[in-house]
Amino acid sequence: MEISLSVQEIASICGASRQQGHFTGPVTGIASLAQAKAGDLSFLASGKYRRQLETTEASVILVPETFEAEPPEGKTFLFVANPSRALMQIGRRLEAQLWPKPPPGIHPTAVVSPSASVDPTAVVGPFCVIEADACIGPGSWLEAQAFVGRAVRIGRDCRLGPGVRVLAECILGDRVYLHAGVVVGGDGFGYETDAGRHEKIPQIGNVVIRDDVEVGPNSTIDRARMGSTIIGEGTKIDNLVQVGHNCIIGRHCILCAQVGLAGSTTLEDYVVMGGQSGTGGHLTIGKGAMVGGQSGVHTDLEAGAKVRASPMMPLLAANRYYVLREKLPALFRRVDALEAAVGLSGKASSGRQK
Amino acid sequence: MEISLSVQEIASICGASRQQGHFTGPVTGIASLAQAKAGDLSFLASGKYRRQLETTEASVILVPETFEAEPPEGKTFLFVANPSRALMQIGRRLEAQLWPKPPPGIHPTAVVSPSASVDPTAVVGPFCVIEADACIGPGSWLEAQAFVGRAVRIGRDCRLGPGVRVLAECILGDRVYLHAGVVVGGDGFGYETDAGRHEKIPQIGNVVIRDDVEVGPNSTIDRARMGSTIIGEGTKIDNLVQVGHNCIIGRHCILCAQVGLAGSTTLEDYVVMGGQSGTGGHLTIGKGAMVGGQSGVHTDLEAGAKVRASPMMPLLAANRYYVLREKLPALFRRVDALEAAVGLSGKASSGRQK
Amino acid sequence: MEISLSVQEIASICGASRQQGHFTGPVTGIASLAQAKAGDLSFLASGKYRRQLETTEASVILVPETFEAEPPEGKTFLFVANPSRALMQIGRRLEAQLWPKPPPGIHPTAVVSPSASVDPTAVVGPFCVIEADACIGPGSWLEAQAFVGRAVRIGRDCRLGPGVRVLAECILGDRVYLHAGVVVGGDGFGYETDAGRHEKIPQIGNVVIRDDVEVGPNSTIDRARMGSTIIGEGTKIDNLVQVGHNCIIGRHCILCAQVGLAGSTTLEDYVVMGGQSGTGGHLTIGKGAMVGGQSGVHTDLEAGAKVRASPMMPLLAANRYYVLREKLPALFRRVDALEAAVGLSGKASSGRQK
Repeated sequence: MEISLSVQEIASICGASRQQGHFTGPVTGIASLAQAKAGDLSFLASGKYRRQLETTEASVILVPETFEAEPPEGKTFLFVANPSRALMQIGRRLEAQLWPKPPPGIHPTAVVSPSASVDPTAVVGPFCVIEADACIGPGSWLEAQAFVGRAVRIGRDCRLGPGVRVLAECILGDRVYLHAGVVVGGDGFGYETDAGRHEKIPQIGNVVIRDDVEVGPNSTIDRARMGSTIIGEGTKIDNLVQVGHNCIIGRHCILCAQVGLAGSTTLEDYVVMGGQSGTGGHLTIGKGAMVGGQSGVHTDLEAGAKVRASPMMPLLAANRYYVLREKLPALFRRVDALEAAVGLSGKASSGRQK
Repeated sequence: MEISLSVQEIASICGASRQQGHFTGPVTGIASLAQAKAGDLSFLASGKYRRQLETTEASVILVPETFEAEPPEGKTFLFVANPSRALMQIGRRLEAQLWPKPPPGIHPTAVVSPSASVDPTAVVGPFCVIEADACIGPGSWLEAQAFVGRAVRIGRDCRLGPGVRVLAECILGDRVYLHAGVVVGGDGFGYETDAGRHEKIPQIGNVVIRDDVEVGPNSTIDRARMGSTIIGEGTKIDNLVQVGHNCIIGRHCILCAQVGLAGSTTLEDYVVMGGQSGTGGHLTIGKGAMVGGQSGVHTDLEAGAKVRASPMMPLLAANRYYVLREKLPALFRRVDALEAAVGLSGKASSGRQK
Repeated sequence: MEISLSVQEIASICGASRQQGHFTGPVTGIASLAQAKAGDLSFLASGKYRRQLETTEASVILVPETFEAEPPEGKTFLFVANPSRALMQIGRRLEAQLWPKPPPGIHPTAVVSPSASVDPTAVVGPFCVIEADACIGPGSWLEAQAFVGRAVRIGRDCRLGPGVRVLAECILGDRVYLHAGVVVGGDGFGYETDAGRHEKIPQIGNVVIRDDVEVGPNSTIDRARMGSTIIGEGTKIDNLVQVGHNCIIGRHCILCAQVGLAGSTTLEDYVVMGGQSGTGGHLTIGKGAMVGGQSGVHTDLEAGAKVRASPMMPLLAANRYYVLREKLPALFRRVDALEAAVGLSGKASSGRQK
């Protein structure tokens, strides 16, 4: 991305308390200390990266106010309360350049049902399809090739990336951001087996996504068998995540990439699920529970529980187990030695020698 | 979804043997006992939920014929042989409302090759692409933005959700339902490494999907290196599942979300794979085998085998192992005590104290 | 796929040193020994499949030059240095039939920004969208419904399958093949939590994919927070893989299906990750390291390391552990016996009897 900001503009955006050094050119990029080139802005996220200051080619560096060092020749330090947050502020200013929202209006190639309602401040991109009785709220932005099914309701200032599909009857609150390829409202996976054939259970519920939810590329959220699959306010979902039918996810949860939730499971508020972890169906995961990456949850969890492993154990038990796991070979040898010492022949009788 | 059915209509659809209670209004929704509002139909799936009858706001409730209780004031019980199946019958009646199939015909925006053949009773939605020599059978429905590649053959009464891609040469039987975002016929993942570079092995086979298969959103099924990747009749595949090239999946299998099958593996009929489980390549999983969630299968499985864990163990062995896993800390202490009792110094020599 | 090649043509394509047998018809298909029908070409990949020669219906079979046996009546053997490679050569010749590249040009339905640059030798399929300032290089092929965002640069002879999305600012080298449904450049998953709400960290970097990379259907590669997520030359990525923001993947790596890499992790050259395996964030996986299927990597790995299990152990330790895991029940019994022999009551005191 080509940018051009003066050191003064950057200092102003992020409220720098002071500056030190003599870089005078425009800032033309942003990068980590390790990747930065001349002209780039960078930042010192934590003391861990301090040695990179000696080798970085960045020209302007955000550093904590407490930081004590001279900037190298030709570079400038900007002192801020929190370099990471300062960078967020600058990033937000630049996002408008990276992702310029087109002017309101419906692209001439879009196919919009006459019975659909699109707010005049909304943006509908090329090759979008909006079916009967759907409703697109003020300021919402459908990028190219998005699909909005029958009777879907989308609130204010939502954004649907290219190729997002929101299927019939589903409801989005305000400021919901669905990234490219997300599918909301696929049928729940439910069958009754009769005479050796799996008979589909009709899935006639919907999905309700509340305000400020973000869902990463190609994730899928299934509609309820009846009633609603619900994603609570402020919850953030990463890529390639599967949310089964009738799940109820609370507010401000975090689901990392490739998480899978089986049907009818409830996550209370602030649950965090690590990457590639999963849950069984019909469970309740208590408020603030944390599930480690690749872990499997097969029973309810109490509020604040921390678990790990597949199937899960309490975090401390799991960590202890992982230590002991490495000592098992020695344990077997110790038992061998004990048996020899007391004249027992357990090894043979236990089949260890087979 | 807005519905309006009288109690009499519902009783008729599901063949209720009798009714009890005095709800007289229209039924305007369907929901679980816990989520239902006034006006909703609900059902008592099992005795487990019986206490919810006291608090539910549902107005009409399907209950088993053997059920003995008075409906609360203003509510009606409908007695049926199997409440869950009765609800399926009602759901099927309502699906036509939720998913109204458009009248036959090709949307004017669709791009259809002159050499493709589309049955006059088929539906082709906006922005669909149908390439040369493809064939779409009677009653099949391509929703918006679907892609059908060269020489693909699609049977009767299939349904392709929005954005489904069926690539060149692949074949679908009858009543196949591919949900939004499914990709059928991506290249198998095969390379030969020559002088440090991975040289692509041409993947010139196809995918054959037999009758009554359903595949969930964003799942992917790769084409064969040569010959066919085959999905057997009646098999049901959930979301975000990966089926590798040259897999042969039998009839009436169940693959839960995020399952992954490496190439050239055979699943015989009625295999069930739990969520996030996977198999190695070139294996045979016997008829009716059951693989637990998050498990990994690395050898052939006999018919009827039940396995769990990564890598898998027989189910009973895995369950026993999970119990012993929690007793390991105590076992280490017991061996410490034994060594102390017999005067052995195993702890030190085994490195336990490091 | 319908093909028609004479035995002589096939012998010529793959440089057969000699032939034996009397099949005279045209070769009309290619299949494995087990699946082949009369008229098909097949091959003997290894001695393991030798017995299939007795029952195969294939008419022409590629065999190693050292192979000694008579072809059955009516069949022909073609002797080649490497049957698997010979088949690759024939497959490559046939690919042009299976995947005929359309003539250069932009389909009339495509929406291409006036400020985008499309080389006259490139192919742009129906319903593609190419946004402002994007650049499509010579010979590159965008299949139907692909999306190329603002300022994206795509090199020579790339191929984007149907429905691929390459989002703003991302860069592809030459001969990159992204399969259907791939999303390149979704936002990295990063938030700062403030007063109980997850505040989005702007993701203003991009993705850079170098020459000869292939990415399987529906995989997702996130853009960097700043700087670039990088996929090195010649790396091959299977289906439904997640690459987190700011990952740096080296050259000629192999990522099997459903792998997940958390943010800011570096893979050096020639790393191999088995299916459904994953890594934590901010790690370095050394050159040529091999990670087993379903394994979890939580620390840096040295060059050449081989690991397995979740969380990972060195491969040999993991394999030993999996053997001991099965002997645990016997070990508990052996300790019981030892305690009985020396008069200790460890079982009770350790809680084993609860």
